[in-house]
Amino acid sequence: MSKPRVAILGLGIMGGGMATRLLSAGFPLSVYNRSRERAAKFADAGAFVAASPREAAARSEIVIGMVADDNASRSMWQGVEGALAGAQPGSLLLESSTLSVGWVRELAAAAGQKQCEFLDAPVTGTKPHAAAGELFFMVGGSAAGFARARDVLSVLGREVLHLGPNGSGALIKLINNFVCGVQAASFAEAIALVNGSGLDREKCVAVLASSALASPLIKRMLASLASDDFTPNFPLKLMTKDIGYAINEAAKCGLPLQTAAPALEVFKHAVEQGLGDQDFSAVVKSVRKN
Amino acid sequence: MSKPRVAILGLGIMGGGMATRLLSAGFPLSVYNRSRERAAKFADAGAFVAASPREAAARSEIVIGMVADDNASRSMWQGVEGALAGAQPGSLLLESSTLSVGWVRELAAAAGQKQCEFLDAPVTGTKPHAAAGELFFMVGGSAAGFARARDVLSVLGREVLHLGPNGSGALIKLINNFVCGVQAASFAEAIALVNGSGLDREKCVAVLASSALASPLIKRMLASLASDDFTPNFPLKLMTKDIGYAINEAAKCGLPLQTAAPALEVFKHAVEQGLGDQDFSAVVKSVRKN
Repeated sequence: MSKPRVAILGLGIMGGGMATRLLSAGFPLSVYNRSRERAAKFADAGAFVAASPREAAARSEIVIGMVADDNASRSMWQGVEGALAGAQPGSLLLESSTLSVGWVRELAAAAGQKQCEFLDAPVTGTKPHAAAGELFFMVGGSAAGFARARDVLSVLGREVLHLGPNGSGALIKLINNFVCGVQAASFAEAIALVNGSGLDREKCVAVLASSALASPLIKRMLASLASDDFTPNFPLKLMTKDIGYAINEAAKCGLPLQTAAPALEVFKHAVEQGLGDQDFSAVVKSVRKN
Repeated sequence: MSKPRVAILGLGIMGGGMATRLLSAGFPLSVYNRSRERAAKFADAGAFVAASPREAAARSEIVIGMVADDNASRSMWQGVEGALAGAQPGSLLLESSTLSVGWVRELAAAAGQKQCEFLDAPVTGTKPHAAAGELFFMVGGSAAGFARARDVLSVLGREVLHLGPNGSGALIKLINNFVCGVQAASFAEAIALVNGSGLDREKCVAVLASSALASPLIKRMLASLASDDFTPNFPLKLMTKDIGYAINEAAKCGLPLQTAAPALEVFKHAVEQGLGDQDFSAVVKSVRKN
């Protein structure tokens, strides 16, 4: 059976890794990126570089978006040159970006009007996982759509889980990321307190690294601190956005996220200090005692 | 060389495990507990059951306190029947309770007036770690005191780390526990949002358990949830106390802990609901949507 034609819309840290992975696996691939320079290296590797999301979608049976936020996603799917305008009836459209549940459901409805299937399929994992095909997909949508997506997503991820109807994938992703954000913010405050109180940082880090709080996320932060390397695997500004989206979704469910609100403040403060394009772990550099 | 005579003051979840461990290792042991019934089984195992902290201290070269909070610690060390009144000059006094830095330093000064060495030596680890000698000791005090304590603490812990002068151990312990508390509170909110939004809990738990946020602490919470077993390894009311102490210490350092404040509210709410004597992981039962 020949492989389906796939489009990747958005060639950032994550989308770029996914495109490379699909090319290696032999999928006929169209790519689109807002700034065209970034697409060039994918042309060298055999991808068709589309001039618009519409063109990429028109050439593909499976279309996967991977961009920063609701705004970027809206402008990619909607409008005259948008992917929805180009999508062929019967195509499978996916969003792997981390988006609000409201926009994901709106997009699902728009896809339905085009006789297309839509899945929200965000991922956990960062840059190295995307390149290695080790993402974890959380999929919301119909069982039929999930079945159709499975082969492609299995190339990109070590795990592909069907959560429920459209919006389910988006929501669990936001829940996951707000907990990550709160962990990161509280750990940044902990490091600031270690520094500000004159404790021996190296020994304190040894304590915290061997404690029950040491999640993979916190270990990644400790590695960034130790090497003073904050090259983005997951940019700080996106963590900031995700915490904000999670707060909005929870409010709609009648559950104010008490722990997320101050974490959002900590991250916003880091963005104000110009750390938005660094790795989220750079939040440790933004907290200082008075 | 004969083993030093040791006293354990406080035979709760942690102190009881430590006493058992020292008896197994052949240390001559005196024990004291406020409610005397709990001490009986240690008498059967060969410990001398003292009628007061004073009596336990008077019989011992090394005295280790392990109680719930500053108040319990004060009433154990101070007063006519307190351990300080019984301590022999040259004895080594330790507090393994999680206490405020202020009280620990006060106690260190009082010990000095008695010609005793004092160490703050709190631990990470819970009930099973105490019983198995796998605690992690964070020690504040003089290098000489640390050297004297090392043999005994090595029986109780897999790791014994000298952090710096008196108060250093107490402070890093509070920093560690406030981060744990924030993690637990945010995870409780996450589970509440999963439940409140109608997501499939089992699948969502699978996502979160395999995510970068899954610290040993969160895995323990997931295990409690899965088995619906909240038998205390680390009681919820003590986590509540620790977050409060950490907020106070940080404020003294000029660093308001933004992420700790709402976590404290979440835990206080759980205590108000009668969950204080259950495991800290019972905080997941206290968060509900409106």
